[in-house]
Amino acid sequence: MIADSSSWLKLSKKVRFGDTDAAGVMHFHQLLRWCHEAWEESLERYGVAAHAVFPGCRGQERWPAIALPVVHCRADFLRPVHGGDQLSLHLTPQRLDPSSFEVHHRFLLEQQDVAHGWIRHVAISTETRRRSALPDAIERWLEASLIGRISEL
Amino acid sequence: MIADSSSWLKLSKKVRFGDTDAAGVMHFHQLLRWCHEAWEESLERYGVAAHAVFPGCRGQERWPAIALPVVHCRADFLRPVHGGDQLSLHLTPQRLDPSSFEVHHRFLLEQQDVAHGWIRHVAISTETRRRSALPDAIERWLEASLIGRISEL
Amino acid sequence: MIADSSSWLKLSKKVRFGDTDAAGVMHFHQLLRWCHEAWEESLERYGVAAHAVFPGCRGQERWPAIALPVVHCRADFLRPVHGGDQLSLHLTPQRLDPSSFEVHHRFLLEQQDVAHGWIRHVAISTETRRRSALPDAIERWLEASLIGRISEL
Amino acid sequence: MIADSSSWLKLSKKVRFGDTDAAGVMHFHQLLRWCHEAWEESLERYGVAAHAVFPGCRGQERWPAIALPVVHCRADFLRPVHGGDQLSLHLTPQRLDPSSFEVHHRFLLEQQDVAHGWIRHVAISTETRRRSALPDAIERWLEASLIGRISEL
Repeated sequence: MIADSSSWLKLSKKVRFGDTDAAGVMHFHQLLRWCHEAWEESLERYGVAAHAVFPGCRGQERWPAIALPVVHCRADFLRPVHGGDQLSLHLTPQRLDPSSFEVHHRFLLEQQDVAHGWIRHVAISTETRRRSALPDAIERWLEASLIGRISEL
Repeated sequence: MIADSSSWLKLSKKVRFGDTDAAGVMHFHQLLRWCHEAWEESLERYGVAAHAVFPGCRGQERWPAIALPVVHCRADFLRPVHGGDQLSLHLTPQRLDPSSFEVHHRFLLEQQDVAHGWIRHVAISTETRRRSALPDAIERWLEASLIGRISEL
Repeated sequence: MIADSSSWLKLSKKVRFGDTDAAGVMHFHQLLRWCHEAWEESLERYGVAAHAVFPGCRGQERWPAIALPVVHCRADFLRPVHGGDQLSLHLTPQRLDPSSFEVHHRFLLEQQDVAHGWIRHVAISTETRRRSALPDAIERWLEASLIGRISEL
Repeated sequence: MIADSSSWLKLSKKVRFGDTDAAGVMHFHQLLRWCHEAWEESLERYGVAAHAVFPGCRGQERWPAIALPVVHCRADFLRPVHGGDQLSLHLTPQRLDPSSFEVHHRFLLEQQDVAHGWIRHVAISTETRRRSALPDAIERWLEASLIGRISEL
């Protein structure tokens, strides 16, 4: 619903002290937490309410009919990330097939890539426990992100 | 069911690298994670199955009728705790009233207290959302821990 | 340096899916992570750079001369907090003595208190490992927060 | 130093309540925390002291000369993992080149694969910040794990 994807695919992340370890830099698995949280923020900014996608939300009479479990994730760590770093974050969602998609997260510090993360989700009917089509809200978000990328060319 | 409380109230905790922060020591809130995990381990060692107390367990046809949300926690940090430290951990559960209890966790490194943590739970009926009596399994664990302490006097 | 404390003592927190547990609500110890992160955000908004207070920051030639370890924390959980909740957060810092202070964090959902957290820090000279005066930057932030509160009366 | 690799490459992991999310199953990025903690446990069981590998350990006069940052990680999630699950965990370390190695973590529940995780480390001289040979302790652990696998054939 929002034409300018820069407001919901380009986010930022301030690295917090508790994200670091005794080597003085970001502890690796925190990056995957940031990726999932950034995906949630992107949906929210685009206009998808949390209760349309995630179970356990306030006032939800029933859970969403389609669950989106993570089936794969990965990350590459290119440069050290420190507490206090103000990172830019670019999300690139990609529809893989009618029931799955992957989001690529690119983290930059002053134009330099410091880390990349990927999270892949599969749509599962909560009733049958079988693969299903993606929820409409996710389809709209995926399609809009594609338009955003085309208009940048 | 186990007479010797030393096997289920005296536990140990190896501090992991990811528990530290850039100051080179344990990041404070990890301690409260350890406390909850130690409580889970104590119940398990005593003979209380996870599915009798916690929601979301495998094969659970329905959730436990009584939820035990945390209503209060606190911790005192007395000495620095480092990655690789092998801590001893003493749990002292206390029944506060018919519907609540608190567990005190004392962390030691070679006989020296390094930190203390407390977690207080209240029993809530998942049906009525009102306070209820504690689950039987928790009552037995609380009573047994009291006997354990008396026998140490 | 910023007169209107509402911009650096009144923050907000969106609850993320990964902050919840299988009971469907926020897992208790995440709140203390949020408190520390909110303190970091408050300092930053007020104008205190991370490298003035925290070790491990980018380009820090040496660590801050004064460390601020957490010596005590606690939290009260008043109402369930769900994924997707948009919480308001009010920080009230308090100087306890020349070498320590505590920050009170009040979490609200639409004017209702849902949880409170407290974190207490002590200033330690990194050279002597003894208690020291608070760092100047923290003193300024504490003093400004007091002025902010007075002007609200 | 320990001939039978089953004691330091075959570990177990009890899934804790705080590892789950509101969907009722393990929250994905916790698995990568478990992988790193299992690697630490494997080293320890084999006979490599934490202070030989990790910075921030007690009594460390100086940091290890060679740092082992994570440069890549990934995970596949095959079946839901629940709180209370008692998982088996098989580690398969692999030397990739003179300065890097990867550990494959296979998580099973009663003979069924539920998830796999991989963590890749590169050796960096803390003095020159350049790639270096792997630390001796890690080389011994890698070699011993290879022998363990051969003897299983």
